[in-house]
Amino acid sequence: MSALDQFLRWLDLAGIAVFAASGALVASRKRMDAVGFVVVAAVTGLGGGTLRDLLLGRTPVLWLRAPEPLAVCAAAALLVFFTAHLVESRFRALLWADAVGLALFAVTGAELALISGADPWAAALLGVVSACFGGIVRDVICDEVPLILRREIYLTAAGAGAAAFVLLRVAGGAGRGAAVAAGVAVAFGIRGAALLRGWSLPPY
Amino acid sequence: MSALDQFLRWLDLAGIAVFAASGALVASRKRMDAVGFVVVAAVTGLGGGTLRDLLLGRTPVLWLRAPEPLAVCAAAALLVFFTAHLVESRFRALLWADAVGLALFAVTGAELALISGADPWAAALLGVVSACFGGIVRDVICDEVPLILRREIYLTAAGAGAAAFVLLRVAGGAGRGAAVAAGVAVAFGIRGAALLRGWSLPPY
Amino acid sequence: MSALDQFLRWLDLAGIAVFAASGALVASRKRMDAVGFVVVAAVTGLGGGTLRDLLLGRTPVLWLRAPEPLAVCAAAALLVFFTAHLVESRFRALLWADAVGLALFAVTGAELALISGADPWAAALLGVVSACFGGIVRDVICDEVPLILRREIYLTAAGAGAAAFVLLRVAGGAGRGAAVAAGVAVAFGIRGAALLRGWSLPPY
Repeated sequence: MSALDQFLRWLDLAGIAVFAASGALVASRKRMDAVGFVVVAAVTGLGGGTLRDLLLGRTPVLWLRAPEPLAVCAAAALLVFFTAHLVESRFRALLWADAVGLALFAVTGAELALISGADPWAAALLGVVSACFGGIVRDVICDEVPLILRREIYLTAAGAGAAAFVLLRVAGGAGRGAAVAAGVAVAFGIRGAALLRGWSLPPY
Repeated sequence: MSALDQFLRWLDLAGIAVFAASGALVASRKRMDAVGFVVVAAVTGLGGGTLRDLLLGRTPVLWLRAPEPLAVCAAAALLVFFTAHLVESRFRALLWADAVGLALFAVTGAELALISGADPWAAALLGVVSACFGGIVRDVICDEVPLILRREIYLTAAGAGAAAFVLLRVAGGAGRGAAVAAGVAVAFGIRGAALLRGWSLPPY
Repeated sequence: MSALDQFLRWLDLAGIAVFAASGALVASRKRMDAVGFVVVAAVTGLGGGTLRDLLLGRTPVLWLRAPEPLAVCAAAALLVFFTAHLVESRFRALLWADAVGLALFAVTGAELALISGADPWAAALLGVVSACFGGIVRDVICDEVPLILRREIYLTAAGAGAAAFVLLRVAGGAGRGAAVAAGVAVAFGIRGAALLRGWSLPPY
């Protein structure tokens, strides 16, 4: 495996870990048992990457190809299971873990699509889908109002980050590391600002 | 691309457009922002075709292969965003847009399955799945009662249209245009009559 | 088709039949029409195998390759439609049909993954996913509280059965029939005991 693939893989695992933690935090709010923690963490952490792989035709999907993704989810779930009582506001911790995962997956999803030969606009779109799907499934199976349907800017942040990354890679010819850093910063910056300041778009 | 493929593609885009409009109408009823309009429109317009492609193994899926499907969804979403206040009953407009999309996708889904080498019964079934899935996802993510679970005949209309098309193509040896027209007419006719006259099947 | 493939296919059809019956029982509780019975039965009976095939990249998926799976679902749906009024407690019948399907799919899902070249841990995991997905979709589209989120042990039973099967096949070198029987017995035994005695894991 090249250094490039290795780098992408670490970024992906980091995204999986924080999304899995966000899932486990929802499980703690719903007072599930330990198995429920692992299930919700795994669904949240792996959902986006699984849909991404299916849509691109990369099968078997990521967690059937290597043990790390699932191990990361299980570890994140158990960590939250034993420490969540120490967290002052589990809902705010969940929002921020979700924001980090959103930013990372928006960029890794777009990058994998580019590598698979997708057009730039399709790559940006797949970044958004990868970034949002795990959280949607988490909220649907746990019967929470999906973050994506709440007032604050969410999907727009993922879209801006994915678009920035793709533009820098394709049109700007930027190096991989710079484009990744810029894409993650744009997505996380917009989502974080929306959380801190309650930014939203005008409703219909 | 042959004239035949071209024709199928236009039909598919027309189905995408009306389903996307039905999604945007739901978004307007839920008072979402402009991004929400585009998201719900895209999920509704592309959901059925995406599942169809996944089940057949046609990957990358349609909206990763060409920009038109997504562009059509975005255009339909914005059109509805700026004109929905002119519509007298958005719920009835939604029901009829959904009925047109249902009829078109039932036939294009069956046709694509036949082209992919599926058996006739499987092709008809895939037509039904393609026709119904986008609307189901629309209603689930927007927290509406799925149209498919309401009393009026819905899935049965898609099934009759898909079966009529497949029968004419396979058993009857009808030409492509005639079979498509007949299939769409059967599906839309049954669904339309069910809407106008409140047709339903007896419950358990 | 070899005797081995034939055997796996029968097991799979048996699992499809009982899951389909569980779906039809939910449809009867919701007072759906006959088409609704068939739809919920088909979604429940075929959901797990469809996701399994998609994740492994085995496309077209099972019910597009052969007519039996769908025919079994339709037959189970109609059988329940005409006999459900004779059942004393439809909810308990549903729980037990679901338990049988869970045990069968946990093993057939794991076996198919092993045949497709998956690692042992991934095979066990895919068994769990195959066993649980149909029931989750059934409960979501019918607006029931998912069995998987209820207090009694559910997913853990599927996991134990799939793991027992994989261990016996891979590490223990057991014959196919013995491993299948053991896996099904472990999964059904744990799930059945949980139903009879109200076994559960401690909540958070």
